Amino acid sequence: MPADHAHAHSGCFDLAAQEAVYRAIFTRRDVRSHFLPDPLDDDMLARLLMAAHHAPSVGFMQPWNFIVIRDQRRRQQVRDLFLAARQQELPHIAEERQALYRKLKLEGICESPLNLVVTCDRSRSRNSPLGRWHNPEMDLYSTVCAVQNFWLAARAEGVGVGWVSIIDREALKRMLAIPEHVVPVAYLCVGRVSEFAARPDLERHGWGSRLPLADLIMSEEYCGDGETELKDAAARLAGTPVGA
Amino acid sequence: MPADHAHAHSGCFDLAAQEAVYRAIFTRRDVRSHFLPDPLDDDMLARLLMAAHHAPSVGFMQPWNFIVIRDQRRRQQVRDLFLAARQQELPHIAEERQALYRKLKLEGICESPLNLVVTCDRSRSRNSPLGRWHNPEMDLYSTVCAVQNFWLAARAEGVGVGWVSIIDREALKRMLAIPEHVVPVAYLCVGRVSEFAARPDLERHGWGSRLPLADLIMSEEYCGDGETELKDAAARLAGTPVGA
Repeated sequence: MPADHAHAHSGCFDLAAQEAVYRAIFTRRDVRSHFLPDPLDDDMLARLLMAAHHAPSVGFMQPWNFIVIRDQRRRQQVRDLFLAARQQELPHIAEERQALYRKLKLEGICESPLNLVVTCDRSRSRNSPLGRWHNPEMDLYSTVCAVQNFWLAARAEGVGVGWVSIIDREALKRMLAIPEHVVPVAYLCVGRVSEFAARPDLERHGWGSRLPLADLIMSEEYCGDGETELKDAAARLAGTPVGA
Repeated sequence: MPADHAHAHSGCFDLAAQEAVYRAIFTRRDVRSHFLPDPLDDDMLARLLMAAHHAPSVGFMQPWNFIVIRDQRRRQQVRDLFLAARQQELPHIAEERQALYRKLKLEGICESPLNLVVTCDRSRSRNSPLGRWHNPEMDLYSTVCAVQNFWLAARAEGVGVGWVSIIDREALKRMLAIPEHVVPVAYLCVGRVSEFAARPDLERHGWGSRLPLADLIMSEEYCGDGETELKDAAARLAGTPVGA
């Protein structure tokens, strides 16, 4: 964290700096393989957490906490939760896709050097829920922004992150003594990796393909036509390699 | 989007590139003021949307759409929704903070050159809800990751973004013809700005202060002691100017 950050607020990013931000965004991956066993340096992990801590939060609520899990036995127990959840989810997947689903690697809980749970304390705004009276879920969304900051900073530091979403959250809460008013928003596997895949695993394995951006743009209202020039610009971009 | 992104997956970020990513994270602001009236270039807006479109998504679901709103009359109507919602929220704010709440500028709907609604189509995984059987909210979280990508890319391009959360979402859905199965996750005000504030507005106006990062770190379970070295590293970072 260089001292000149404080002076850089109004400054523009030069082209190289802009490219660095886009590169982190386009080459970030949800990592399940290629974890190296090397422990993460505490100074570096602190930087990643500081990045998370500078996410936007509704009413400046900063509802997050960070539970660092290193114990191998505990992680094995979490992995057992994942395995059970995957078995429960399997029958809900379309039959013709179940064979592929079974082959997908969907977590790196034990291979990664550490796991991180990012939680949301829903009580932290106390008696002044600015921005949450109509939309109480905004604190959960703020916590997700913290996860994404962490993920992008990690990519820039050469650290892979994988979000495990196939898990019974109530069982996880009991295992980690997480109180009622706190939600474990993200269970992350974190560690240095030997490589970042060129494309998302699910794309590579044929689970899905990248939708054309231009098709996702609407004008003025849902399904509203228009924005032809913007859509053309999006279509031009889609033809260039962007780490998709 | 340079062609060399495709070759940069395994590559490390050099120090300058890492700093650029951290700088975007630390100097990003929830912008409500300082919008310039200049229209945004379509090529640039397409780049920002492409950044959003490269967010992680559960089961590679890509559940997002982007509604671009430019019409001034429509935006005035949305602003009326905000004003009504603020009046409804006010009595739920602690009495001693209501005077400050009234003074805060909490949106830039009409001053910014455009508004953007990022929606989540909850039906897009069809019959294969990979990663969503236990946690169906994961598609909403994916959409929030897209918002954060957009926000950080915008910061790098010198574009301010403000998320309006004080709004009645059902009323907004009716106004924008958003169907039942689609959630408007974020209502964003977007535009070039004359400056990015050195600190978040709510911190500057005394609504809250940045929590010490070290206090937010837990070990192995909720409120678990430990991680002394990591907390020390976090405390050392907190003493350096990082655009907080």
